Amino acid sequence: MNCIIGQSGGPTATVNSTLSGIIYKAFKSNRYDTIYGMVNGIQGLLNKKVLNLSSMFNSQENLEKLKYTPAMYLGSCRFKLPLYEGNPSLYTQLFDTFKQYDIKDFFYIGGNDSMDTVKKLSDYAKNKNYDINIIGLPKTIDNDLAVTDHTPGFGSAAKYIASSVLEITYDSMIYDTNSVTIVEVMGRNAGWLTASAALAKTEFLDTPDFVYLPEKFFDIDNFLEDVSERLKLKRNIVVVVSEGLKDKSGQYISDNPLNNALDSFGHSILSGISVVLASTVRKNLKCKVRSIELNVCQRCAMHIASQTDLDEAFKIGEYAVEMASNNKTGQMAILLRDEKNNIYTNSVDINRTANLEKRVPIEWINQRGNHVTKQLYDYIKPLILGEVNLLYKNGIPDYIDIGFLTKNEL
Amino acid sequence: MNCIIGQSGGPTATVNSTLSGIIYKAFKSNRYDTIYGMVNGIQGLLNKKVLNLSSMFNSQENLEKLKYTPAMYLGSCRFKLPLYEGNPSLYTQLFDTFKQYDIKDFFYIGGNDSMDTVKKLSDYAKNKNYDINIIGLPKTIDNDLAVTDHTPGFGSAAKYIASSVLEITYDSMIYDTNSVTIVEVMGRNAGWLTASAALAKTEFLDTPDFVYLPEKFFDIDNFLEDVSERLKLKRNIVVVVSEGLKDKSGQYISDNPLNNALDSFGHSILSGISVVLASTVRKNLKCKVRSIELNVCQRCAMHIASQTDLDEAFKIGEYAVEMASNNKTGQMAILLRDEKNNIYTNSVDINRTANLEKRVPIEWINQRGNHVTKQLYDYIKPLILGEVNLLYKNGIPDYIDIGFLTKNEL
Repeated sequence: MNCIIGQSGGPTATVNSTLSGIIYKAFKSNRYDTIYGMVNGIQGLLNKKVLNLSSMFNSQENLEKLKYTPAMYLGSCRFKLPLYEGNPSLYTQLFDTFKQYDIKDFFYIGGNDSMDTVKKLSDYAKNKNYDINIIGLPKTIDNDLAVTDHTPGFGSAAKYIASSVLEITYDSMIYDTNSVTIVEVMGRNAGWLTASAALAKTEFLDTPDFVYLPEKFFDIDNFLEDVSERLKLKRNIVVVVSEGLKDKSGQYISDNPLNNALDSFGHSILSGISVVLASTVRKNLKCKVRSIELNVCQRCAMHIASQTDLDEAFKIGEYAVEMASNNKTGQMAILLRDEKNNIYTNSVDINRTANLEKRVPIEWINQRGNHVTKQLYDYIKPLILGEVNLLYKNGIPDYIDIGFLTKNEL
Repeated sequence: MNCIIGQSGGPTATVNSTLSGIIYKAFKSNRYDTIYGMVNGIQGLLNKKVLNLSSMFNSQENLEKLKYTPAMYLGSCRFKLPLYEGNPSLYTQLFDTFKQYDIKDFFYIGGNDSMDTVKKLSDYAKNKNYDINIIGLPKTIDNDLAVTDHTPGFGSAAKYIASSVLEITYDSMIYDTNSVTIVEVMGRNAGWLTASAALAKTEFLDTPDFVYLPEKFFDIDNFLEDVSERLKLKRNIVVVVSEGLKDKSGQYISDNPLNNALDSFGHSILSGISVVLASTVRKNLKCKVRSIELNVCQRCAMHIASQTDLDEAFKIGEYAVEMASNNKTGQMAILLRDEKNNIYTNSVDINRTANLEKRVPIEWINQRGNHVTKQLYDYIKPLILGEVNLLYKNGIPDYIDIGFLTKNEL
């Protein structure tokens, strides 16, 4: 019997660590003749894009290198598996492929949409009495999956954000003039990533000055008041905002028509919220303002990944193989935390987690809505601990070759 | 007798390493009773903002921590010292301060404007037969100072850029669809930083696909042809552009009126060149396009600084104290390279380097103007080697306290 592994959704620094953990344990378990990988997730599987991972990762060295490579070795897809009703041929096609490759365990690493796929496939298999374990593994920088204490990938993004906000704060302090620096962080609905900027605080430096999460309405007037009051106390202000802040009418701040810009063709220019807020501060407070968008480096900066995150991502991969051995189909592997902040693996029925979104509890945001509470700080802190000891070659990180993904033919 | 040290211009990851090198050697030399620092450069000195560095850095631990702290411990200024003619009182004020503090050696770490200050002060001191050594130390991520083989600060920025472009490339490859990623790099006139993206290339991965430096005119039609031709060969293209690219009429691409946007107040929105080019590619090639601005992290990301750069920055600081011992006033410390790529310190008359700008030689850019040559690659490579072994605390880098810089009063 064989197994197959897929990756889906947006990349993280540690999603290959989970893949590495599955492969490592799959070898060790002697449960499979061959470990297969689907290229570009379930969408690639529909096109029979399948790799033999057993032959590619039969050395410990390759598995270790895979663990420390960002993005997705197997490629990804943004494909929401449609309902069985109306699309039975998609399902029969997939299960015919499972039969063809003698797949008994199916591992799918992803976020919310991917867990929906796990749910649909496991429901179908149960209905058809098909002998296969369909197992989900969580992954997302957004940390918005339900039931699991946190998701692999979040801790590394949080460490990158906190460290970068610290470095940006240092950078902002050098001139003898007032300045406001506005840093934009990913996470449209859930504020976990934005909150992680609060971890930039040191014993010396109370940074960032303000943190605005999408879980609360954003009020421009309050924001301007926050900033101008703080400027009376110190010269340089650092503000961190979620890309997804909305005003109380539910409109995205970045979509505010007052700030909508058109190019000379009449096309709208999509400016992020940091650009919009910087422009607002400049007009109202007449001081030097910078906007900084922490871009995709948030999800791919392996060079400052959290070793804790990498190890947990690996562990959850190993655990998924144990789940398969125990026929825990239709379940997602999760991480739980005991009262001593120890993290351990467990599993949960996929129906309890698929299509749910975990946002920051309102009580973990301060009354004014401009910073996080100590509980939120304490929740994130253990997840960003530990530094990677990456291999470098010619001055840059030495990652595993994923060049086959960009070729036009597999 | 005493000495004073100042920092000026934009920050880098390693300008505090140079400060640390000067202080270390100043202690060791027993040349001074007190080592002073001016806060916010020459502008702060005019306001007598002076620190006693001897008492603050009398432990090896603090000096080591200073070496590994980004931005500028002493703060900075953007102040071009005016000519003596018409402003004699500024000069008498500064030299009165030197007399008051018994300053015999003046060390100024900075870029082009700072070297102009060194030139003016040393010319004045010579004219007045004032007994003081005025010594310049180079620092800039832009690498645009003349005579020195390269400038401290450049290697770390180059390492950050090359590593980030590699990670962004991995991130760009995961989907089964065409994509173009446009990365914008600092350096308005000189293409050194943009060129350093070429160091992202590995034995497996030929990235970035194209690199456009400001030393050559940028032709939009050629650019679109480059990208669309390459898209026939592979799925995901990564392009790196300098923020300062101009067309053949000398106009900045980012200022192109065809791409000028106005908000609803009629204010122009300043979009960087990556946004402008992404919009152009989107209109013409109909594929997924992302623009990424590598922001100030280019100059403050100590967490991925080049150890070679940090050590050279320290060494040039030590060397400046030797220059002072030999009364080499009106000179700048420089780095030179022998044929075996060994780097050594030397000095040059400030008139040979002040107010000159070193750009990338045209013959180090390929004929088409869309990539660098092997010579340019080989020039940068040794400068990015070596990784920092940073101290971390609570998951973030443990830098020295510079909180006093943001207080309203010193």
